[in-house]
Amino acid sequence: MTQFDAPIITAALLVIGDEILSGRTKDKNIGYVAEYLTNIGIDLREVRVVADDEADIIAALDALRHRYTYVFTTGGIGPTHDDITADSVAKAFGVPISVDERARTILLERIAEKDLNEARLRMARIPHGADLIDNPVSRAPGFRIGNVHVMAGVPAIMQGMLDSIAPTLKTGKKMLSQSVRADLREGDIGSELAAVARAHPETMIGSYPFMDDAGRPNTNVVVRSRDSATLAEAVAAVEDMLAKVRVTSGTR
Amino acid sequence: MTQFDAPIITAALLVIGDEILSGRTKDKNIGYVAEYLTNIGIDLREVRVVADDEADIIAALDALRHRYTYVFTTGGIGPTHDDITADSVAKAFGVPISVDERARTILLERIAEKDLNEARLRMARIPHGADLIDNPVSRAPGFRIGNVHVMAGVPAIMQGMLDSIAPTLKTGKKMLSQSVRADLREGDIGSELAAVARAHPETMIGSYPFMDDAGRPNTNVVVRSRDSATLAEAVAAVEDMLAKVRVTSGTR
Repeated sequence: MTQFDAPIITAALLVIGDEILSGRTKDKNIGYVAEYLTNIGIDLREVRVVADDEADIIAALDALRHRYTYVFTTGGIGPTHDDITADSVAKAFGVPISVDERARTILLERIAEKDLNEARLRMARIPHGADLIDNPVSRAPGFRIGNVHVMAGVPAIMQGMLDSIAPTLKTGKKMLSQSVRADLREGDIGSELAAVARAHPETMIGSYPFMDDAGRPNTNVVVRSRDSATLAEAVAAVEDMLAKVRVTSGTR
Repeated sequence: MTQFDAPIITAALLVIGDEILSGRTKDKNIGYVAEYLTNIGIDLREVRVVADDEADIIAALDALRHRYTYVFTTGGIGPTHDDITADSVAKAFGVPISVDERARTILLERIAEKDLNEARLRMARIPHGADLIDNPVSRAPGFRIGNVHVMAGVPAIMQGMLDSIAPTLKTGKKMLSQSVRADLREGDIGSELAAVARAHPETMIGSYPFMDDAGRPNTNVVVRSRDSATLAEAVAAVEDMLAKVRVTSGTR
């Protein structure tokens, strides 16, 4: 079996929220979703962050949902006036939106009927034709319509929703990766690493500088492939190259 | 003077790097740039994260640079084969790229001439017509071409470059913001807050749930305006509303 036998499943993440763009809230979802999708065999190809602005949300949705297998959104599905994600998604798909009885029933598991005011009922507004996404943390559901999965922005809730969604997703062959610590500076190995990358075109090879515990500039070389044998060959080639450069380099 | 006298300066951030999309590296630049630009009077309107892929970088640059006053990029300007940002920017602008003598001279401040190999010289490849951006941390410069500012991905270096760029930027009237702790749940105040927001259309009012120290769901209401009097009026209206809801609400 080659790495090309399984289909490649792609995704984009759309982070919705003025508070991220103003810097007031530091996003914690991008890194989590990226790592999560990689681990289940879905390639995150693009992330966008937009404001709580209907036109911006719709434009981003339309750009992303036709290009990738899946789109995930975070943010903007709470009970206040600035939570406009559900309405924007409905407009993007050209479907009506109203209070969904399934969602209302779920809210009533946690909220007494007398407290289910107009604001809280906003959280049951779901575009027609959407499936609900279970929220194991605070109940108010997300939803899926077409290939778009609409999740909360609060990290703990988003993470719970992602666990609910994961079993329903098509996944491809997982991207494997191995990191090799160079004990050399990036500039020491650039040409040699480029040659290794050219000789292993079926892998992706990245180079990431870091400051090591001894305070010296160091480099992690990360090799990625969906095939373990292909990965191992390229890692061996990287290690051979690094051993040679360490001998000849006068820089350490 | 009204809030509309000063022009509004907008920006987009383009984060470039496979390692962010795979989740291997957790981005630390988005939040920093967002807060920094807000503080100097520039509105960050959109963020995109794309892979180390020339077509993706160019498509994002072309979408963003015509729409916003400024574009800032992070990542992909190091010495290795996967650092393709400079070449992609040159292509987006339709200009040649080659080793820039000014940049080469700067690299020689830190790197001995015998160590200035082909890989390290990649860091002196600058699109023709670009201005250099000073890198006070590790010398290898970024560059500005048109309204696009190309910065390193390593946070400390990016931050140094942003300090170098800031004095050259046009800035608008700073967006002021004030946060009011509700001591109520979002769902308790949704309708009332929407009414306040409608009555103060010249402000932006956001609502952000959080778990307080007593472990109870709580809410921060954030009011934003470029005008301090307008801001103060809306904040007072929010505080009045909250006081009333606290009295009538049976939820606490």
